[in-house]
Amino acid sequence: MAAAAPPPPPTPAPSAPTGLPDSDSTPVGHPLFSRIRLATPLDVPHIQKLIHQMAIFEKLTHLFTATESELASTLFKSPPFHSFTIFLLEVSSRPFEKDSNLHSQNFTPVERIINLDHSLIDPEAETFRNGINGDAVVAGFVLFFPNYSTFLGKPGFYVEDLFVRECYRRKGLGKMLLSAVASQAVKMGYGRVEWVVLDWNVNAIKFYEEMGANVLPEWRICRITGPALDAYRDAI
Amino acid sequence: MAAAAPPPPPTPAPSAPTGLPDSDSTPVGHPLFSRIRLATPLDVPHIQKLIHQMAIFEKLTHLFTATESELASTLFKSPPFHSFTIFLLEVSSRPFEKDSNLHSQNFTPVERIINLDHSLIDPEAETFRNGINGDAVVAGFVLFFPNYSTFLGKPGFYVEDLFVRECYRRKGLGKMLLSAVASQAVKMGYGRVEWVVLDWNVNAIKFYEEMGANVLPEWRICRITGPALDAYRDAI
Repeated sequence: MAAAAPPPPPTPAPSAPTGLPDSDSTPVGHPLFSRIRLATPLDVPHIQKLIHQMAIFEKLTHLFTATESELASTLFKSPPFHSFTIFLLEVSSRPFEKDSNLHSQNFTPVERIINLDHSLIDPEAETFRNGINGDAVVAGFVLFFPNYSTFLGKPGFYVEDLFVRECYRRKGLGKMLLSAVASQAVKMGYGRVEWVVLDWNVNAIKFYEEMGANVLPEWRICRITGPALDAYRDAI
Repeated sequence: MAAAAPPPPPTPAPSAPTGLPDSDSTPVGHPLFSRIRLATPLDVPHIQKLIHQMAIFEKLTHLFTATESELASTLFKSPPFHSFTIFLLEVSSRPFEKDSNLHSQNFTPVERIINLDHSLIDPEAETFRNGINGDAVVAGFVLFFPNYSTFLGKPGFYVEDLFVRECYRRKGLGKMLLSAVASQAVKMGYGRVEWVVLDWNVNAIKFYEEMGANVLPEWRICRITGPALDAYRDAI
């Protein structure tokens, strides 16, 4: 990936006439403006690159085959939240301009300002620039879809993937993405949000438990795939 | 549940004029005619009872709250296979009559004849009689829905529940239900079929492995539900 020039300096925080710190919530220091919005088909190239980075991080590149065209042909086939849904995380050193196109009746973009101690250098900024809002880049995503609990008689959401690019980690952005899914579930009257974690990833488990999750110790995933699945073509 | 009279005797197998056994596949002995079809909203009362039996079997009745109206208001909202989908298993001592209403463009019912050594007594036949085809009863179900693999760039199916009533177990009917889901996945070009199993259920694990499944040892389910989920109502 192309190394990028350092991002432009953050917008200076306006000073109060007295020289004292502002008493309102105007960001000071190095604000990182973040936004969560629904992804669209135009985001597929960035999404494909994020999934590839996730496969590298998980040391599972041998399982990664997804192309942009496969993603484009299988995602965005249903209205948001009815099937596979992606929230995209964007960050910028400047406030996001209002974009009425992003305000669907299903979801209003979520914005947060994160105050950093130091300005942040994104070595992949050129690769993940989103073409709008000046220096805004795609920093992560969460893909989720409805699941169903027969015991509750209610749908829920299953979070298949949650990923934040390396230079944006440990700033609360992963929590922001997962919270957005949980909040949406509550608004829709859904009963659960579920996902899976590797049992040796104790930091992730601690993080999820602090977010209110229970880790279920006894259940194991069963999977039929590849030739074993193909063998069922004419089984019925 | 009401105890029911024993089912009527099975249809006698026609004899060949010579008195020798038939050379074709005409069932002999005690045939159990089985059929898998897409469930409809009319099946909700039976489905609710099956889920309740499953909760009892799993010793999880404290988690079971689903009412018929909750199931009816959350299932059958999308075309089959696009969202939550139920295959219903029916059995009868007589062949199923052809029902053109059941042949949707999405799925043709699957029929199998199982030859039993002894006639079978279903103590819950009255409760699970389906109102068609004489003595046919509902014997089980499988509920599944699309999931998504970002690594494959393809949907799959996740099997939430598979249940066969006690008196019909160990006759290949569970395998028939799971095979129907796997076969449908292959026909739709999907990449995986997944479900979960309790780690102490060694018989189930052996059964699934014989069906071609891998059990993934390292992944654990995380779940936010109840008050912990409600806390996210205004998180975003």
